[in-house]
Amino acid sequence: MDTVTTVYSGACPARALLDRIANKWTTLIIGILGEADGPVRFSDLRRSITGISQKMLTQTLRDLERDGLVVRKIYPVIPPRVEYSLTPLGRTLDDPLRALSQWADRHMNEVHAAQHAFDAKSA
Amino acid sequence: MDTVTTVYSGACPARALLDRIANKWTTLIIGILGEADGPVRFSDLRRSITGISQKMLTQTLRDLERDGLVVRKIYPVIPPRVEYSLTPLGRTLDDPLRALSQWADRHMNEVHAAQHAFDAKSA
Repeated sequence: MDTVTTVYSGACPARALLDRIANKWTTLIIGILGEADGPVRFSDLRRSITGISQKMLTQTLRDLERDGLVVRKIYPVIPPRVEYSLTPLGRTLDDPLRALSQWADRHMNEVHAAQHAFDAKSA
Repeated sequence: MDTVTTVYSGACPARALLDRIANKWTTLIIGILGEADGPVRFSDLRRSITGISQKMLTQTLRDLERDGLVVRKIYPVIPPRVEYSLTPLGRTLDDPLRALSQWADRHMNEVHAAQHAFDAKSA
């Protein structure tokens, strides 16, 4: 163990951070913000991520804002417009998370074949 | 959206797969197996990952085995010895997950600074 050592300790703050970034919703939100040309509205984020609840999206965005990964801008119009974009720090996380999404896309078929073989053996 | 498109759809199996791999415990387990010279015993995994329960480790390893990422070998000794290692497919996931752990380690201080600033502003 070299550079990954600290995340293995439950007491280490890097573990808590890993818990927040190694997360399906974080991966999807940062992926959308990373691909967008400009800020993205809350309503567009919600539409883009099938199955996320308003509450979960709000909470995840708040955590990401607190972590310094996402910036929120509120426009004082009626109804208020709220937009999100990545900070420079958030942009450094886009590549590793994108690699993970791509892995899931690319290896889905192999994983399915493995699951079928496992289930057939267990049955 | 190009290569990441499918994970955004709740109905897509790639989303379910992302849910399992973008996960703190998966990241830690695959990290250990990826760095080990040979198979790793269940008891050593448990010792290496502070805070993981026996039940959570068992369930995560079973999911990873079913996904074809981890292989389990049982030695018929008394008491039975159970060892785990990565499959070739599991090894392809080691790099992206390691990049995530390293990101957490490297940027922890910046994240903490952001959290303090956020909390000071919200107080």
